Amino acid sequence: MADVKLIGTPLCPYVRRAIIALSLKKVEYEFLQEKFGEKSELLLKSNPIYKKIPVLIHNDRPICESAIIVEYIDEVWPESGCGAILPADAYHRALHRFWSFYVDDKWFPSLFAVGKAETEEAKAEAVEQVRAGLLLLEEAFVKLSQGKAFFGGDRVAYLDIMFGSFTNWIEAVEELVSVELLDEATTPALHGWAVRFREHEAVKESMPDSGKVLEFLKILQAKWKKDAAAARN
Amino acid sequence: MADVKLIGTPLCPYVRRAIIALSLKKVEYEFLQEKFGEKSELLLKSNPIYKKIPVLIHNDRPICESAIIVEYIDEVWPESGCGAILPADAYHRALHRFWSFYVDDKWFPSLFAVGKAETEEAKAEAVEQVRAGLLLLEEAFVKLSQGKAFFGGDRVAYLDIMFGSFTNWIEAVEELVSVELLDEATTPALHGWAVRFREHEAVKESMPDSGKVLEFLKILQAKWKKDAAAARN
Repeated sequence: MADVKLIGTPLCPYVRRAIIALSLKKVEYEFLQEKFGEKSELLLKSNPIYKKIPVLIHNDRPICESAIIVEYIDEVWPESGCGAILPADAYHRALHRFWSFYVDDKWFPSLFAVGKAETEEAKAEAVEQVRAGLLLLEEAFVKLSQGKAFFGGDRVAYLDIMFGSFTNWIEAVEELVSVELLDEATTPALHGWAVRFREHEAVKESMPDSGKVLEFLKILQAKWKKDAAAARN
Repeated sequence: MADVKLIGTPLCPYVRRAIIALSLKKVEYEFLQEKFGEKSELLLKSNPIYKKIPVLIHNDRPICESAIIVEYIDEVWPESGCGAILPADAYHRALHRFWSFYVDDKWFPSLFAVGKAETEEAKAEAVEQVRAGLLLLEEAFVKLSQGKAFFGGDRVAYLDIMFGSFTNWIEAVEELVSVELLDEATTPALHGWAVRFREHEAVKESMPDSGKVLEFLKILQAKWKKDAAAARN
């Protein structure tokens, strides 16, 4: 019996990736919950370089960074549960990795910037960037899904997990600032995908709804406002 | 016969990764050289999101981002040339990916900051960061190499390529600012590795020496100084 632990918080989208991957593979594990604003000794010891969640601990060996954790889970349990997470074709694997990189590098920072914007102008600019990114991801979805349900075709694959972990965050940011981002008229394929992804058995049972993320975002927003006011003084 | 092209410049360390991976696998390809400060139509068409080199074009399909390109090459030509680039063991793969991520995310930016520093204070701080990073990588080397020649043990593997592509840049920055960074006394294992890596048959024949990088860095430095002066006015 493998000894699997996951250090994280339920709302963190990066931790969510590991949770979904483990759930797809039907791997049992212990969830070690971190407290917001604190770092446990185990976290500091397991990820001394970044001191960040998620960390997967498999047979006492820590694996850090969500993208690396998802690939690790796929490699250690290749045939378990719903099968492979990375597509079989090398070119598709490269595209899944590329768009996952784009989501982390460019797209999510712009989503975060929408929530963090202090002026209407900054908000409008960030909203524009988020929507431009979603249009690119809509194109990628059409190309990769080939008319099927997911980026992985018939099944939830790497990019589904890497981008799908943000679907409740998109909704929460939409509610927080009262704008539509993942709009059915502009990005119909992606809109349908997001609904299907959240209904998937490996996702549905444990993914927090957007209301919980919204509560958390309101706490963050209050903190950002306080920090910004302090910085002005 | 596969149709393989690589868009890049010979001095770019990210392009170097693709060159070394192709060389290890003994894959023949056409090198499409970009001009410094310009972007070809093919580059813009092949990497519309980032507009950056390297881009590998395999049977007319572009693959972007050096880390993704190296994994792609390993997956498409698994048995060719010197064999696998990613280690066989999933935990070792995760460590190779983690330290490669660290090199790109934290370490190389600090090496660049040494060359870019405008004051002695900024330079000293960046040098400190580079050396601290090298100490971490020394530890990682000892753990992963198990007393053998490379991060991959007996053979050049993923992290050897991802970090090794900077070895001539380290030397060039050392010469540019007259400081020792990869010091034999402090980081003996890594120092020895860097020498062995550059002597490897897949690296030696084409990797530019540090003198060529230094020339390029001097051009960059002059540009930085001009830009900084313009920003002050």
